[in-house]
Amino acid sequence: MADATSAREFGIVAAAGGVTAPLGFTSSALHCGIKKVAAALDLVVIAADALSSAAALFTTNLAKAAPVLVSRDHLDRTHGLARAIVVNSGCANACTGKDGLANAERMAAETAGPLGCASDAVLVASTGVIGVGLNMDKVVPGIRSAATSLARGKGADAARAIMTTDPFPKEHAVTVNTARGSFVIGGTAKGSGMIEPNMATMLGFLTTDAQVAPPLLKRALTESARDTFNAITVDGECSTNDSLFALASGASGVVIDEELYPALLDGFLAVSRELALGIVRGGEGATKLIAVTVRDARSVEDARQVARTIANSPLVKTAVHGADPNWGRILAAAGRAGVMFDVDQATVRVGGVLLFENGLPHDEAAPEAAEQLKKATVQIDVNLGGGRAEATIWGCDLSAEYVKINGEYRT
Amino acid sequence: MADATSAREFGIVAAAGGVTAPLGFTSSALHCGIKKVAAALDLVVIAADALSSAAALFTTNLAKAAPVLVSRDHLDRTHGLARAIVVNSGCANACTGKDGLANAERMAAETAGPLGCASDAVLVASTGVIGVGLNMDKVVPGIRSAATSLARGKGADAARAIMTTDPFPKEHAVTVNTARGSFVIGGTAKGSGMIEPNMATMLGFLTTDAQVAPPLLKRALTESARDTFNAITVDGECSTNDSLFALASGASGVVIDEELYPALLDGFLAVSRELALGIVRGGEGATKLIAVTVRDARSVEDARQVARTIANSPLVKTAVHGADPNWGRILAAAGRAGVMFDVDQATVRVGGVLLFENGLPHDEAAPEAAEQLKKATVQIDVNLGGGRAEATIWGCDLSAEYVKINGEYRT
Repeated sequence: MADATSAREFGIVAAAGGVTAPLGFTSSALHCGIKKVAAALDLVVIAADALSSAAALFTTNLAKAAPVLVSRDHLDRTHGLARAIVVNSGCANACTGKDGLANAERMAAETAGPLGCASDAVLVASTGVIGVGLNMDKVVPGIRSAATSLARGKGADAARAIMTTDPFPKEHAVTVNTARGSFVIGGTAKGSGMIEPNMATMLGFLTTDAQVAPPLLKRALTESARDTFNAITVDGECSTNDSLFALASGASGVVIDEELYPALLDGFLAVSRELALGIVRGGEGATKLIAVTVRDARSVEDARQVARTIANSPLVKTAVHGADPNWGRILAAAGRAGVMFDVDQATVRVGGVLLFENGLPHDEAAPEAAEQLKKATVQIDVNLGGGRAEATIWGCDLSAEYVKINGEYRT
Repeated sequence: MADATSAREFGIVAAAGGVTAPLGFTSSALHCGIKKVAAALDLVVIAADALSSAAALFTTNLAKAAPVLVSRDHLDRTHGLARAIVVNSGCANACTGKDGLANAERMAAETAGPLGCASDAVLVASTGVIGVGLNMDKVVPGIRSAATSLARGKGADAARAIMTTDPFPKEHAVTVNTARGSFVIGGTAKGSGMIEPNMATMLGFLTTDAQVAPPLLKRALTESARDTFNAITVDGECSTNDSLFALASGASGVVIDEELYPALLDGFLAVSRELALGIVRGGEGATKLIAVTVRDARSVEDARQVARTIANSPLVKTAVHGADPNWGRILAAAGRAGVMFDVDQATVRVGGVLLFENGLPHDEAAPEAAEQLKKATVQIDVNLGGGRAEATIWGCDLSAEYVKINGEYRT
């Protein structure tokens, strides 16, 4: 455990568990019947022991699913407070019109009842097939059962209950030690998967027992997501249901103020990075994680834009899949990113191996770079040679399996 | 043949041949040895009988290949005049530094010699592997031989000589009949293919025997490309070498002024549309052509942006490949295009079959739409319900074959 000798210093260490690792949180997951596979967990309630600070980030897609609209509305009404989050997998409740909104509200109300809180204090998330209504005859009894069987230490079940076809559950927790005490941050997330098949959706849930005012919680969530959940890409798609939630119970007694904010932010970053990279590793058809780092850009926005264009380039993704050290595709993707830079000043490295510099290739290094491309994590570095800003975007390779997963008949 | 009773009226009919169909053009294609396959055409000179009006559009990629830089420079120097275009396939002469520029200039000079024109009057285009220098010991004798064996009626060879792994050659020609006489427009193009494998490049060449001043030729090329060559996408990539050229010999004696401009533009559109759709049909791994039409947008730019986002969406492309009438993916792609619209006012049709309206799906129509998706050309219509502008973008499906073509080891 790291020492923390002043309030400005802190240490972050991994902790056991996930979304219920911090004090003051319980959960209950069960199979209510939305998923067709018997006993597959498809519903979970994550609850705080008392009304807590809450914040959320939602999809920027104009086609927002009912649970997104309802959760956003509830957070507006409570000014950033919540008692619980109810989540189902197997049905996204997206593009479902007024009935969909009513069903999402009903999910909140059914959760609020047993907890003895207002409906507005419950947030809602859904993931799965879109354009299909929720079977409330299954969902309502499920929620009633879950909301009355909440327990500590069941975070692993929560991580499984939010999965669609994610190849593995994703949870992580850390303890943040400061001179003013320790607090825990936990989380779980699910990534791109599909049910029948259909929309990929990213859902993330962070909890902490630090005491954080809603505006500061929102700030920490926004700032940490920028370099984690918002810095990953599987196929450049943005779902109708993407949501990231944070709840802060305050049960640790550690109060986050401006002085301790860096410790909270770094803790959020640590948990979020682990979960976000798990989403990419579990991306549809992915066999390799690709980290694209762009340096010496004029601004962080420029660096991010170039890195994102490279990470989303089908030609780069297929080249990495085939372990082809094709620096030309990387350079060409950078060149079409809409960011000005001098190609002759740029360098391209794959797995640390310099392949392009001063406008000319280093073809003699290609075999060495090809070896680097066979690793499970591939580092691509592009230096734009015209500034001091940098950013990293994480993506994955593009395999024939992606086409197979997404091209199968739904009907 | 259509009648043309006033200068404002005109008729366009298909004509035989391609880039040498208009009067005043010759070509000569041969195998100089860049391509490894014996006798595979890899070099062509397309020449006008005399100095002609010329215009070109080049890649917006910052990483511009040497032939792009040289051609742009030559057109600047001549203020839009050219005698010939020399093109090689098999080597893109991109990311090749000062030697690459010198080689592209040499290609122009070697072509200019036998033609008795200035080097600046020759334009240059290359396509193929990038980061590799041209073997001038093969290219120079090839150019000397081609430039001294120019002949009419060899457009089909030119169409083959510019191919990389295009599955078929693309050429088209039309006769435009006006009250002031007839003129011919011909063209050839190559699309996304690769050599070893490497960058896909789009090259297009249009010729006409109409007499057109350079500024008007540039205008016609720009305006026609917007809805044809610039309205297609295979994988959203933009090459280092993308170039579209136009030469106008004036040999028909028909002078294009503002009154006849619409006839020239429509002729350019007719030839360019045919060539552009050929590029998409021959896209890497493509099995279907997808036409995405967005209507009732607030502006043409909005319509184009939404259509392009849908046409480039991996989830839409794989759904079309699998004949899955997945309107949710179409709507979600539209929703993340960065264009404001009201989802509840939008409609989505696949193959003319209404699948989404008033915020709700028409699932009963899915089997009918699935049948439409089995056709070689798939029409996707999205109505944004908030304006009067429309645009169409053409793309293709995403198959496992695309991944195979682009993911194989280059080294």
